[in-house]
Amino acid sequence: MSDPHTSPIGVAVAGAGTVGARVVQQIAGHADDLRSRIGQPLRVVGVAVRSAGRNRPELGDVPVTDDALALAADGSADIVVELMGGVDQAYAVVTTALRRGASVVTANKALLAAHGVELHRLARENHADLYYEGAVAGAIPLLRPLRESFVGDHIMKVLGIVNGTTNYILTQMTDEGLDYATALGQAQELGYAEADPTADVSGQDSAAKAVILARLAFHTDVDVSQVSVEGIERVSVADIEAARAMGFVIKLLAVAELVDGAGVVVRVHPALVPHTHPLASVRGPFNAVFVSAAAAGDVMFYGRGAGGAPTASAVVGDIVTAARNLTAGSRGFAVEPYAALATLPLGRARTRYYVNLHVADEPGVLAAVATAFAAHGVSISVVRQDGAGDEASLVLRTHEATDAALASTVASLRELPAVRSVVGVMRVEGQA
Amino acid sequence: MSDPHTSPIGVAVAGAGTVGARVVQQIAGHADDLRSRIGQPLRVVGVAVRSAGRNRPELGDVPVTDDALALAADGSADIVVELMGGVDQAYAVVTTALRRGASVVTANKALLAAHGVELHRLARENHADLYYEGAVAGAIPLLRPLRESFVGDHIMKVLGIVNGTTNYILTQMTDEGLDYATALGQAQELGYAEADPTADVSGQDSAAKAVILARLAFHTDVDVSQVSVEGIERVSVADIEAARAMGFVIKLLAVAELVDGAGVVVRVHPALVPHTHPLASVRGPFNAVFVSAAAAGDVMFYGRGAGGAPTASAVVGDIVTAARNLTAGSRGFAVEPYAALATLPLGRARTRYYVNLHVADEPGVLAAVATAFAAHGVSISVVRQDGAGDEASLVLRTHEATDAALASTVASLRELPAVRSVVGVMRVEGQA
Repeated sequence: MSDPHTSPIGVAVAGAGTVGARVVQQIAGHADDLRSRIGQPLRVVGVAVRSAGRNRPELGDVPVTDDALALAADGSADIVVELMGGVDQAYAVVTTALRRGASVVTANKALLAAHGVELHRLARENHADLYYEGAVAGAIPLLRPLRESFVGDHIMKVLGIVNGTTNYILTQMTDEGLDYATALGQAQELGYAEADPTADVSGQDSAAKAVILARLAFHTDVDVSQVSVEGIERVSVADIEAARAMGFVIKLLAVAELVDGAGVVVRVHPALVPHTHPLASVRGPFNAVFVSAAAAGDVMFYGRGAGGAPTASAVVGDIVTAARNLTAGSRGFAVEPYAALATLPLGRARTRYYVNLHVADEPGVLAAVATAFAAHGVSISVVRQDGAGDEASLVLRTHEATDAALASTVASLRELPAVRSVVGVMRVEGQA
Repeated sequence: MSDPHTSPIGVAVAGAGTVGARVVQQIAGHADDLRSRIGQPLRVVGVAVRSAGRNRPELGDVPVTDDALALAADGSADIVVELMGGVDQAYAVVTTALRRGASVVTANKALLAAHGVELHRLARENHADLYYEGAVAGAIPLLRPLRESFVGDHIMKVLGIVNGTTNYILTQMTDEGLDYATALGQAQELGYAEADPTADVSGQDSAAKAVILARLAFHTDVDVSQVSVEGIERVSVADIEAARAMGFVIKLLAVAELVDGAGVVVRVHPALVPHTHPLASVRGPFNAVFVSAAAAGDVMFYGRGAGGAPTASAVVGDIVTAARNLTAGSRGFAVEPYAALATLPLGRARTRYYVNLHVADEPGVLAAVATAFAAHGVSISVVRQDGAGDEASLVLRTHEATDAALASTVASLRELPAVRSVVGVMRVEGQA
């Protein structure tokens, strides 16, 4: 509880790149409307830029500084907006603001993945708000419903496409038959992928978002080092074709799920999704997240995952919420890890699998392979034998099994004389 | 501002049908978890049922009464949950609760459509919360994002499938080729449609939800009498086939949109949606709502639109939010019609159209028809001439035009000697 704020609400913006500049412009351009929504006007008290000497006409007459830390410490800023990117300096800015009780809005997923638990603790201790809707899935209102709408329900699984770069690449590989390198080059030309695309294609960006989603969905601390991550670099056109033949598409998924009521598994990897599943039709740079809750059932959120305008929309929405809380003398609901669930290793996850084997063209191969699956308690749902001679292949899909059992099965398969090579192994997610 | 609540939070539930009984059970079954989320335990102080004499073991040891109004007036209830249905008695219960400052949770769309503006005013005046996430699109978190997430953006249009009964019927007509009466009968057998399906198939249920969405999206009062409503009773298999031939499906849409920055048009009608549009793949009893905002772009919310469990999830979510506000001594953001936009007639809406004409099989028909369109300033995008003799038809799609211009065009077409009849006219929504 605080006293209601009865004067203009000061906003400091640290970082004036694409998103930061748009945020400053939106606050100026919609001043009257925002005042109606908040009950008090917003006043931008300062913008921190990398180089204060440069002329920045797009920022209007807002005071500009190159000292972001001093701006965060300035008591005239009731709300500090961090849009600098990176982790270390952003951490310094955000903790400085929270420690003096200023509310913080950020869209910095790397910062939140690395320090989110501590930042939420600081926000609670200092009675400050901490909002970051723009950090995951652009302007799609996803984190607020996770924080607030499902509070009377039990979330069991969150499953999503949260990286537009990799979804664009996989969509182009699927629709145009491009190989990975060509699709990546095209994404770079169109600005969907960075010059160094590692953070996206390796799955690390999705992993940071998965951690943020897991913490909110399960009221529990999750460390980003505990996420199992596999990128899309090794997805081949052959994998995509094999998936298509079975009625599936390949998507890079971020998954956070309750396992055996005992803990949480968080994983990022390419997976087969039935082409009739709503996630299968999420194409190009779009994002979508499925939330499965005990009573609500499956709910999906869909929209543009990134870009300056959508992210700025999410940031301004958070600023307005924090400002309305200040006007009301209240704060938003704190995020607390009260459930304190364990993070479990990938082996504990239960899902279905696709296994593609290059096999000897001789009698008894299927029997040997089926025996290996049965020995590890993995039940086969569909088998297809194709080709002959050196091209003979065996493609299997399993019923639900633990990742550990599947891994042991694959290790056994590699030892079988009849199995020349394990061509592909991929998880299968989403009911048809 | 109020003092923080430091004792158990009393909840009264008026109405103990499917949803009400589930709500009582969820509060009892998840007591510890809810206490963690709220900071105080919830205590159900009473349940109002239609007939208090009947044994209700599913309600446990909660006090049961048949006097809902007395329950709403009882000061031990900090939150009153209205799940009785109907309008008049529900209105009495909800206003009684709000007038004494109790927060209200309801899922009663008819009540909100009829009296929502007044109820929000009462809630503001008495510093009470009024939540109703379950009233539109079941457990899909939609109203809260509309109220809170887009506050820094400008919503331009809300477009959705908000009635599961009609969506199920149209899906069966499309997929199975059933006629309307057969599909309706099947929906009734499966419990997706009521014995008297009028409210659903006439579009009235969608209209009530459209009004609720319009008020939240545009911060403006909208009266349900100002909604233009057309149901699905006259959609034929021939319409669906003609749509399919052009790459479209037919959906019953609820639309609320800003027009010319001057006002709001709210309309419910069957419409053609491109089969590649995400709304086209919303099948059976599912709901989905598209929100188009200036900065965020298009965002879609998807999930199960009705049913006891999803609605109960939404209601319990609202109870927890209201209870957390009480614990914090705050209230949620009030809904205020500060934008005070006019509600404009349907004729002001701008969209695209499909027109199916039965025409004479003679030279010059297309020229005459095209002249009629041009005379009203309606631009044609695609024309297809089919059949010959008595079966000759002309199917056209237009570029964007006002509904008034299209209506005048159709009136002129009916006067043309070459036009034997206007077989179908339907609006086209959603970019391919």
